[in-house]
Amino acid sequence: MNPKMQWLRNKMASLDLQGIIISNPINIKYLTGLDAEGVLLITRKENIYITDGRYIEYVHSTLTLFDEIIVYDIKDVSIDDYENFFMFCENVGFEENYVTYAKYKELVRKYKINNLVETEYIIEKQRMIKDEEELKNIKTACEITDDCFSYILSYIKPGMTEKQIANEIDEYYKQRSDGISFDTIVASGENSAKPHAVPTDRKIGKEDIITIDMGCKYNGYCSDMTRTFFVGRVPDEIKPVYDLVLKNQKQTLDEYKDGASIRLLSKMVVNDFRMNNYDLIHSIGHGVGLEIHEPPFINYKNDTTLKENMVITSEPGIYVTGKFGVRIEDTVQITKSGCITLTNSEKNYIVI
Amino acid sequence: MNPKMQWLRNKMASLDLQGIIISNPINIKYLTGLDAEGVLLITRKENIYITDGRYIEYVHSTLTLFDEIIVYDIKDVSIDDYENFFMFCENVGFEENYVTYAKYKELVRKYKINNLVETEYIIEKQRMIKDEEELKNIKTACEITDDCFSYILSYIKPGMTEKQIANEIDEYYKQRSDGISFDTIVASGENSAKPHAVPTDRKIGKEDIITIDMGCKYNGYCSDMTRTFFVGRVPDEIKPVYDLVLKNQKQTLDEYKDGASIRLLSKMVVNDFRMNNYDLIHSIGHGVGLEIHEPPFINYKNDTTLKENMVITSEPGIYVTGKFGVRIEDTVQITKSGCITLTNSEKNYIVI
Repeated sequence: MNPKMQWLRNKMASLDLQGIIISNPINIKYLTGLDAEGVLLITRKENIYITDGRYIEYVHSTLTLFDEIIVYDIKDVSIDDYENFFMFCENVGFEENYVTYAKYKELVRKYKINNLVETEYIIEKQRMIKDEEELKNIKTACEITDDCFSYILSYIKPGMTEKQIANEIDEYYKQRSDGISFDTIVASGENSAKPHAVPTDRKIGKEDIITIDMGCKYNGYCSDMTRTFFVGRVPDEIKPVYDLVLKNQKQTLDEYKDGASIRLLSKMVVNDFRMNNYDLIHSIGHGVGLEIHEPPFINYKNDTTLKENMVITSEPGIYVTGKFGVRIEDTVQITKSGCITLTNSEKNYIVI
Repeated sequence: MNPKMQWLRNKMASLDLQGIIISNPINIKYLTGLDAEGVLLITRKENIYITDGRYIEYVHSTLTLFDEIIVYDIKDVSIDDYENFFMFCENVGFEENYVTYAKYKELVRKYKINNLVETEYIIEKQRMIKDEEELKNIKTACEITDDCFSYILSYIKPGMTEKQIANEIDEYYKQRSDGISFDTIVASGENSAKPHAVPTDRKIGKEDIITIDMGCKYNGYCSDMTRTFFVGRVPDEIKPVYDLVLKNQKQTLDEYKDGASIRLLSKMVVNDFRMNNYDLIHSIGHGVGLEIHEPPFINYKNDTTLKENMVITSEPGIYVTGKFGVRIEDTVQITKSGCITLTNSEKNYIVI
């Protein structure tokens, strides 16, 4: 059995769970490597993956004996089979944050489970701490993203549209990775004031501000980075905002380390922004892994601490409605004594 | 108020619901046109949309007075506000097939609702029947897809990889539509035996079989089409399979009309495939609209009937493991007396 499945069995024992039903495909991919549609059952004695005709061939060709997973085609699973899977199990866990209310009722009925127990993100919590191979994949995704940014700086010319630039980024990623990890944001001029902008047909001016938020996947693992930069010159009215964002972005990285309080990290940025009459309108960061946004979420409501080998972003931003916005984001790995920046693109004023 | 919101209020009255919480973003887009993150509350007297800082500007600039929707920034909504929204409502509906079990418990707690009622896909069921504007959008998406297929037939040359062809399709769509409606499938040779194939680096041979499953979005609405075609010649061993798939695809279209039994339509194909020693391993079709796969699902478990102005696919397929596969798919609009094919690409043997 692979170490991640072994970890789960030990965790279940400590929680007095005799079985668990895993429905979230990202958690299944994490535990088994499988990228398909199906459900993973950990029973007293067996690991069972139920999928359908579309994936049977792929699943069989991906799993090895070492995985110790028994594969069923859903059309061959009888009513009796469902009732037998968790027979003699007192407590069976499920993912209450993934399974819908309707599905929950179906699980109780179909598997005839005595006690279907909420598991409070046990797998997501484990996923926060990356192992060596996961770190390697994220690091590679971040390197490709740095390279892509460096390429795109040389590609952009006044007159190009935001869409055209976003397409070029997507194309770059397609050729060198598994593709984008989220919809690329290219927001110029007043569009940069929208934190969640979608690329438009707006043309880049001879003097302009551009925010690009971009990332790719490598072996399923994501990167995430944002840079705000300038065409022609850095306008005087933007400089103090840029400096304030960059100062806070660097300060969070200085404070990011094993044991740091996430709430305090957030408060630090909120307070400094407020002192300068700006609001922090989104969280300052999030975990990055198989998902582009995953725990831990770095905001003032989170009262946990950072842990070694978490991979998270730092991305404070200030948005002046109708005028401009500045956001700077790195992906970093938390260590015992600090953090390793996996994103290494320039953060001081960039003028093209 | 727009007609779709008015429809929902009437429907709620008929179901004795005094309020409803809509969480599924696709349903919110259908009802309001909004493409953001948030929750839509229909209360006794008001329509309320709660979103966050990232979307406030977009939402305000998209909605008009005519929409009669009050917008809240989630950070300004107090505990009292939540408790007041549905005060004096006996029954409040929610989407039990979208809302997670954990979220369900949170809704009950936060809104202090007497009776949170399952609504059994009421909006999805309404979404099955397309209005004129929706039909126009889907028709345009299908036309762009026909054009793209015609272009790609002239583009493909032996030696190209599946990935290269898929990229070209994606690029074509990007320039003429909102982009792909699902991950483009280009599956050649033995890969065509996988119904859910992902494009690989396999090169197209001088004599080869290729299945392409492709679609785009236009104003948010999807198209979906599949063709299986040949390079050089049509191998004799494939001909009878192709003929059988095409015969069944055409027969379903002949039977598609208002009032037709979905179960019987499915059985017809299952039986004809069985008589020829093949299995139907996926459903023969699905609804197409804001989502690429939406109700109605055309399979033998569905005991409803087709209705006028549903838009669905017909896509029977046969897969000979390790050798080849054939799938042919059109998107069509159901009418009183039959169906209108929105996909109009060639279905007889195509050899390039």
